[in-house]
Amino acid sequence: MDIKQVAKDTARVMASYLTYQAVRTIINQLSETNPPLAIWLSNFSSSGKIQDGEVYLKDLLEVNQELAFRVMTVRDYLAEEVTEFLPSMVCTEIKQANIEHRRQHLERLTRLNWSDSSLSPEEDIQNEINLDDPVT
Amino acid sequence: MDIKQVAKDTARVMASYLTYQAVRTIINQLSETNPPLAIWLSNFSSSGKIQDGEVYLKDLLEVNQELAFRVMTVRDYLAEEVTEFLPSMVCTEIKQANIEHRRQHLERLTRLNWSDSSLSPEEDIQNEINLDDPVT
Repeated sequence: MDIKQVAKDTARVMASYLTYQAVRTIINQLSETNPPLAIWLSNFSSSGKIQDGEVYLKDLLEVNQELAFRVMTVRDYLAEEVTEFLPSMVCTEIKQANIEHRRQHLERLTRLNWSDSSLSPEEDIQNEINLDDPVT
Repeated sequence: MDIKQVAKDTARVMASYLTYQAVRTIINQLSETNPPLAIWLSNFSSSGKIQDGEVYLKDLLEVNQELAFRVMTVRDYLAEEVTEFLPSMVCTEIKQANIEHRRQHLERLTRLNWSDSSLSPEEDIQNEINLDDPVT
């Protein structure tokens, strides 16, 4: 398991995700101050290229330098504000989700076992008799 | 800007991404120890539902409990190992990428300005004359 590579890939994915969050923030701000520009940025960002934050920024720089600089500033700010809480949040998120999956799975299995063994009372009695008297 | 919500969303995206990395790790391990199972897991995971790690795990639990538990264990391990380095890695990643975008953009602008002003020597002289003698 190449932990170093996983960490590197995860950091890159997070940088892209924070770019997306920065764009969302700016679209929200613009929808109050400059609605036409909010619509323009929203259309520009919906083409799927925001999946890769760096390609997105390169393209945005060529058509609207001011907005691109604003996205860079906001994502930098978000990274500073958000990342320090992430280690504990992600670990907790995963541990809690794992517990919940195990609980639901156990519940499902118990339900299945219960429905397998939910025979009619007569059958239950017959089973009890059989259990009580292994000779029969 | 709702920093708390951004942090929460980012943690959820990261948990999903680490689930994907855990699955990749397990497919790699299985391709050495149990190639048919590696192919099965690879096919199961390629249907796009791995985008949401929790939906993916829920589905996997129903068809292969052992593999689902293994994914949960590995993603928990990855979270413990990887997340502590992420705050500085993500901040550095974003700052460096921002610097690089600004540098490339400045270079492009400089190139454009240079090509605008790259006239022939005769034209330069003529321009100089015009500049020196605003009356003409």
